[in-house]
Amino acid sequence: MCELNAIVINGDERELVMESVTKMVVDGDSIELTGIFGEKAIIFGTIKEVDFSKGETIIIGN
Amino acid sequence: MCELNAIVINGDERELVMESVTKMVVDGDSIELTGIFGEKAIIFGTIKEVDFSKGETIIIGN
Repeated sequence: MCELNAIVINGDERELVMESVTKMVVDGDSIELTGIFGEKAIIFGTIKEVDFSKGETIIIGN
Repeated sequence: MCELNAIVINGDERELVMESVTKMVVDGDSIELTGIFGEKAIIFGTIKEVDFSKGETIIIGN
């Protein structure tokens, strides 16, 4: 199965918030991330980019 | 490399708009999809879900 690393960008800061993300569900201004072991995290922001060749998704933080 | 099928939902309609998507870039209310052979498509809508286990990304059309 595919997985990506989720990176949140706030201004100049770039933070890896979850590795091996297997699912992202957007709900208004928040995104629920689910990891390969079923762990979940809620991130406030918007998806900017999903790039499988880089193996990352970029989220712009609120 | 990972790829997903991009599905656009408009009301009750569910349309497969691109197979083997390798990159998605959000720009305001549009999303640029790039396929595994470099083909590109611009979709007007918002990303609702990215699910690697199902191999699909769900976009809610404008």
